Amino acid sequence: MGQVIYSLDLIGTFVFAVSGALAAARQKMDIMGFLLVAMAAAVGGGTVRDLVLDSGTVFWAADANYFYSIALAAVFTFFWAHKVSSRFKYLVWADAFGLALFALIGTQKAMAMGLQPIICVVMGAFTATLGGILRDILCGEVPLVLRREIYVLAAVAGSLTYWGVTNFGWPGEPALLAGFLAALAVRGPAIIFGWSLPVYGRED
Amino acid sequence: MGQVIYSLDLIGTFVFAVSGALAAARQKMDIMGFLLVAMAAAVGGGTVRDLVLDSGTVFWAADANYFYSIALAAVFTFFWAHKVSSRFKYLVWADAFGLALFALIGTQKAMAMGLQPIICVVMGAFTATLGGILRDILCGEVPLVLRREIYVLAAVAGSLTYWGVTNFGWPGEPALLAGFLAALAVRGPAIIFGWSLPVYGRED
Amino acid sequence: MGQVIYSLDLIGTFVFAVSGALAAARQKMDIMGFLLVAMAAAVGGGTVRDLVLDSGTVFWAADANYFYSIALAAVFTFFWAHKVSSRFKYLVWADAFGLALFALIGTQKAMAMGLQPIICVVMGAFTATLGGILRDILCGEVPLVLRREIYVLAAVAGSLTYWGVTNFGWPGEPALLAGFLAALAVRGPAIIFGWSLPVYGRED
Repeated sequence: MGQVIYSLDLIGTFVFAVSGALAAARQKMDIMGFLLVAMAAAVGGGTVRDLVLDSGTVFWAADANYFYSIALAAVFTFFWAHKVSSRFKYLVWADAFGLALFALIGTQKAMAMGLQPIICVVMGAFTATLGGILRDILCGEVPLVLRREIYVLAAVAGSLTYWGVTNFGWPGEPALLAGFLAALAVRGPAIIFGWSLPVYGRED
Repeated sequence: MGQVIYSLDLIGTFVFAVSGALAAARQKMDIMGFLLVAMAAAVGGGTVRDLVLDSGTVFWAADANYFYSIALAAVFTFFWAHKVSSRFKYLVWADAFGLALFALIGTQKAMAMGLQPIICVVMGAFTATLGGILRDILCGEVPLVLRREIYVLAAVAGSLTYWGVTNFGWPGEPALLAGFLAALAVRGPAIIFGWSLPVYGRED
Repeated sequence: MGQVIYSLDLIGTFVFAVSGALAAARQKMDIMGFLLVAMAAAVGGGTVRDLVLDSGTVFWAADANYFYSIALAAVFTFFWAHKVSSRFKYLVWADAFGLALFALIGTQKAMAMGLQPIICVVMGAFTATLGGILRDILCGEVPLVLRREIYVLAAVAGSLTYWGVTNFGWPGEPALLAGFLAALAVRGPAIIFGWSLPVYGRED
């Protein structure tokens, strides 16, 4: 199971890195800019989590496979993405998969340290969403996930479900699957139907 | 005394979180955006301080009361703030109180680790002001505290005073009070009279 | 040799701090803003490196000389820079020197922890370039180094060379010199001839 999660984690890292590289493309950056924004998007959330939890050398510095996954995504996007006209369509679903996975990994790591439930959920949400926020800041944009579409909420739903069923006694694998499905159950319809949370002052 | 400081700390956290939530309101974010910007404003400074000092799990991850205080502020602001027309008037004073308190807490933490005086003062200023800067960055604004009003200087005045009188031999409580009053003595008139530090190139 | 590197490090810190202070000048900040942006530019990269490596109290908090170097640069720039009309001309070369040095220091620190080669190179690039990126974010600009001129690549060239010749068996001093010259060999012509890496979508 650990190997499966690890492989999925590297794939999720690749997907988030592509979202970073596409943002770099919109800013007409060079390949180094692609690499850095891809890195921020892919491991920014997990980095903040590891720093806040004080869990030693940050995960991607201790295991270069994350960087290779990111570099592959950055180079791939730099050279071929502009030929893919409808590139965004599938990416948004791959991103939902990464969002769900990263939320669970973050929650799991915080739970393993025995932190309070709400903090474990916050760590899941951080892991899943701060990378995208960092990506937008590096590109000079107000982070979109904070005002459009149901995004952070999906991470929270996955984290909360995982925490809940684990404490209900479910073993690791079914608990992860339940959390994963909960996150997708919130994010999926939001993608299909364009759902958003109400924003402040809408009625003004 | 520890309990008093702790209670004040949670109140200061609430106030800073409200300032974050109001910034999120200006950007028309959803409730998740409110929560995140409120968090950045309220605990961003202390988080950077804890990371730089390498003082273990960051304070708010080890004690969920900070998060509850922030969540309360975010939800409260999201639902009721738009009915408060003159909301900014009192907030700026509550913010001055938080500024003074956070500066002292940051300085105290650095002094407890035996760091050099100037670094203790910098840590006080970081704790008090980096949250507001992070808040502005998340909202796509050039941080205001860096060019308008005497703000960072008030944190420095409080930190410096606290450090000074502590080394002069004053015990904890009077030293904290002295630092607190020093910060307010700088920030208060700046609020009332709209004082600013001279900015670069004014004479151009 | 350690003393020489340390002295050069403080000089590099001063130079990077000046670049931060000049950015603060463009934003018409006050002296506190100058200090903060100078700090971000000068020690931002090394701070992220130390945090990611989890190498204890961040270097500048453990040794106030870095702060003194930054404060000197901020005050100097605040009061006298506007009288220097052609100030940018020499600064860009001083900056290249700092870029090369910081890349080597970052790589060295990561190598001393036994991290994988590619991570050591990334740490070199982070140390040399993240400060400038943080500076630009604080000033509300999309980081320039990500799309103009060959900048990050020079840091990578220096780091890679240093890592390579060290593993080839070269002792510390010649290895540092080789890395230094490699970084300058990439950055120098880029400054003189205005070379850039190709950016994404140029052919569109």
